[in-house]
Amino acid sequence: MKEAYKQATYAFEEDEIPIGAVIVCNNRIIAKAYNQTEKLNDVTAHAEMLAFTAASEYLGNKYLHDCTLYVTVEPCVMCAGASYWAQLKRVVFGTTEPKRGYRRVGNLLHPKTEMVSGIMADECAALMASFFANKRN
Amino acid sequence: MKEAYKQATYAFEEDEIPIGAVIVCNNRIIAKAYNQTEKLNDVTAHAEMLAFTAASEYLGNKYLHDCTLYVTVEPCVMCAGASYWAQLKRVVFGTTEPKRGYRRVGNLLHPKTEMVSGIMADECAALMASFFANKRN
Repeated sequence: MKEAYKQATYAFEEDEIPIGAVIVCNNRIIAKAYNQTEKLNDVTAHAEMLAFTAASEYLGNKYLHDCTLYVTVEPCVMCAGASYWAQLKRVVFGTTEPKRGYRRVGNLLHPKTEMVSGIMADECAALMASFFANKRN
Repeated sequence: MKEAYKQATYAFEEDEIPIGAVIVCNNRIIAKAYNQTEKLNDVTAHAEMLAFTAASEYLGNKYLHDCTLYVTVEPCVMCAGASYWAQLKRVVFGTTEPKRGYRRVGNLLHPKTEMVSGIMADECAALMASFFANKRN
C-alpha cells in the first residue's frame, strides 16, 4: 500500500484526483498506476483500470487469479466491475468512498475475491481531502 | 444500431464474444468498437470501453454529454460504471443480459442518462447464441 500511496502522490502532483494502485503477484509488484483521467481525457483511466491492463499485459493473461490489487481509495462501480472480470484473488483498499465507492451498490467483486479495507486509510483519506481543499480554494 | 451490429460481427469473426458499440454525437458516428478482450488479453477491452475512450479522444473531452451509446448487448457493471462517469445523454442497447447485465444490480447509469432497450434485440441475441453454440460444439 505504501507504493500505491506513492502512486497517488504522483497523481496529486499532476492535479489529478490522487488515487494510486499497484498489483502484486507472488510477492512482486507487477503493475503500478495512478489516476490519469484529466491528462488522458478519459473517464476509464482510473488507477485500477490502468493497473489491470498493465498486469494482464505483463502476465499475458486477462485473468489475475493470483494477484492482489492495492488501491488507496475504495474502487468505484466501474473498477469493481473490472475486478470482477479479472477475478482477482484479493482487493485491498485504503480509505472508504461512501459516495462513489462500489459498496453503496452492493458486493460487486467476484465471489472468489477477498476484500480488505482500511490499510493506511488515514493517509489515503488525508491526501484526498488535501486535494479537494486545494480545489475549493 | 446497425453499425453496432456490424461491429459485433467483426468480434464474432475474430472469435470474441460478439458485442459491438458505436457512439453518436450530433447525428454522426464518432466512435466504433467491438469486444477485444481475448485479442488484447484485457478484461477492460469491452466494446463500450473502447468506444468511450475513442469518443473522448475524438471530442477532446472526457464527458460525453451529447452522445448516445449504441451497444448490441446490455452493458455489464464495469461498462455501466464507465458510462456513469462519462455522463452520456443516452444508452441504447439491443438484447438484455440477465446474468451479467448491469440491471441485475440496479440502475447504475448517471441520473442524466436516458436508457432505451430492445433495439434489434433478436438479431443481437441470435449472434450471441450462435457464438456460444459454436463454443459448445
